Amino acid sequence: VIASGICGSDNHILDGSIPLHLPAILGHEGAGIVESIGEGVSTVKPGDKVILSALPQCRECDSCLHEKGNCCLKEDMFSPVGLMLDGTSRFTCRGRKVYNIFGTSTFTEYTVMHEFSVVKADDDAPLENVCILACGFPTGYGAAVNAAQVTPGSTCVVFGLGGVGSAVVLGCKAAGASRIIGIDINEGKFEKAKAFGVTDCLNPRNFKKPIQQVIMDMTGFGADFTFEATGTIETMIAALESCNMSYGVCVIIGVPPAKSQLSFDPLLLLSGRVLRGSLLGEYKTRDCIPVLVDDYMKKKIDVDSVITHKLPFVEINKGFELLRSGKWCSMIELS
Amino acid sequence: VIASGICGSDNHILDGSIPLHLPAILGHEGAGIVESIGEGVSTVKPGDKVILSALPQCRECDSCLHEKGNCCLKEDMFSPVGLMLDGTSRFTCRGRKVYNIFGTSTFTEYTVMHEFSVVKADDDAPLENVCILACGFPTGYGAAVNAAQVTPGSTCVVFGLGGVGSAVVLGCKAAGASRIIGIDINEGKFEKAKAFGVTDCLNPRNFKKPIQQVIMDMTGFGADFTFEATGTIETMIAALESCNMSYGVCVIIGVPPAKSQLSFDPLLLLSGRVLRGSLLGEYKTRDCIPVLVDDYMKKKIDVDSVITHKLPFVEINKGFELLRSGKWCSMIELS
Repeated sequence: VIASGICGSDNHILDGSIPLHLPAILGHEGAGIVESIGEGVSTVKPGDKVILSALPQCRECDSCLHEKGNCCLKEDMFSPVGLMLDGTSRFTCRGRKVYNIFGTSTFTEYTVMHEFSVVKADDDAPLENVCILACGFPTGYGAAVNAAQVTPGSTCVVFGLGGVGSAVVLGCKAAGASRIIGIDINEGKFEKAKAFGVTDCLNPRNFKKPIQQVIMDMTGFGADFTFEATGTIETMIAALESCNMSYGVCVIIGVPPAKSQLSFDPLLLLSGRVLRGSLLGEYKTRDCIPVLVDDYMKKKIDVDSVITHKLPFVEINKGFELLRSGKWCSMIELS
Repeated sequence: VIASGICGSDNHILDGSIPLHLPAILGHEGAGIVESIGEGVSTVKPGDKVILSALPQCRECDSCLHEKGNCCLKEDMFSPVGLMLDGTSRFTCRGRKVYNIFGTSTFTEYTVMHEFSVVKADDDAPLENVCILACGFPTGYGAAVNAAQVTPGSTCVVFGLGGVGSAVVLGCKAAGASRIIGIDINEGKFEKAKAFGVTDCLNPRNFKKPIQQVIMDMTGFGADFTFEATGTIETMIAALESCNMSYGVCVIIGVPPAKSQLSFDPLLLLSGRVLRGSLLGEYKTRDCIPVLVDDYMKKKIDVDSVITHKLPFVEINKGFELLRSGKWCSMIELS
């Protein structure tokens, strides 16, 4: 493993709001070089540059075979067991079993993964940058271009301007949105957000009204598309209520704490709203991430600007502190 | 007014679960003949056959001007006042003001409506049949063909096999669904449902497992499309959980009791599910209902079979009894 992003979900595992089998090696947004392969592996070979994806694409299951499905049934995210498919762990520490997470575990020099989670990358791709194409960047970008299918001239609202939210902004802009309203309680993110394409930055704590009413006032009748990239229930409701009652589309991206309940009056939907989730931007990982890497190499997508810090592995805890402080860190280096 | 359907929403007004200003003349699924027009009315003239729609299309508001919007801002359904736009009521009874409902009020010989809620119908259209094209039929049919965009070969589940649910079934079939699972607690509806195209009829009371688990067992990984046409929260959750976690689309159509709360774990969406509402089948009423009338005249859509009973106006309370008994009545005659 050459490099790995730090994702908010890693932090949720640390703070206990996403319960997993422990002890485990965290990290699920990695890039590296294949050291060796097992029997029958045909799509990558030793020496290949690869991206390590939390979402597999086995190309055999019901979801992989469906045109619109990308939640491969081999995934280990929704009811995680933290083990290889044969029930073993390949990590130990002083003789004790250590679990993997999401079939990846990238905060380590060497990991063992199934072929269906390993994405071949361009030989010239800079691994310390494209590692965030494993999860954070496509999760945000694809939410805009695939899940919401943002239309030219539309108004979009992005709740949360961290790594994922920034990628949403880039996706909205690429799709031709004419107004992008960015919401965050950390105003330190606003300058960069504006550089990405946000036209209006709002801190909800600066308003007496609920932020959904502020957005309704600003837009007249609500936004065309809203995106929730924080993983909090209150923000999900705000995102739903901020989109137009008739034609608005609200996309939920952020992962909430375990056993959360989203509660709202279904009349919010009956007028015509669409509420949807989006898993890794609806991309089928092994088919689509190589295309994103190519787009990056051709400078069609600005992945580099989403990366705020690069740290050596020994400073990983500093990376988490930056994440928690709202200065979000899209990157650590391991090499 | 020549004829009017009886809709479940009328019954919800009677039982108090949809609170409106009372006393009022109910009925919002009507067809009739224009008796006279006010100043400036240009799209219909006295003698025209018309359909009386609860959902206006003013062609001027934000929603009407939006390609995908059909929730005209002149509607009187979501925060109903029960009056004309000038604040008056045109109904009195022994000197007392009587409210209208949803800008229509069709359980009466004469009603007064705004031009934007009046849909011109074909001169040869049989009003005592096409009146359900005002609400119930397009609400169901359009949920399948417009909101869900059912695909050929797909598996669909329809919760509730009343008038709206039957129209959903017809829409799914027209769109090429290969399997249509129909759910109702009243098995008396199953024979007709099968004639419409339902391939599997299930009564949830015949199973020990929750119906969503039964559907998961039957389909392997959940349905492509699910539809909720009963207006109960429990059924909405069942419909959401019955669709595929990755590519499933759940459409909510039934109107729930006032101030209901739909509560679920947002992880149900994060895997890729789409949850959406659908108002009057996403049709822009004045543009699209005439096309539906034409399709009916050309025998492309089977509206007649959805009508179970025709009653004279004096037997309207019998119509409501039939509705409540689960024998649902899509029709009363007034002439």
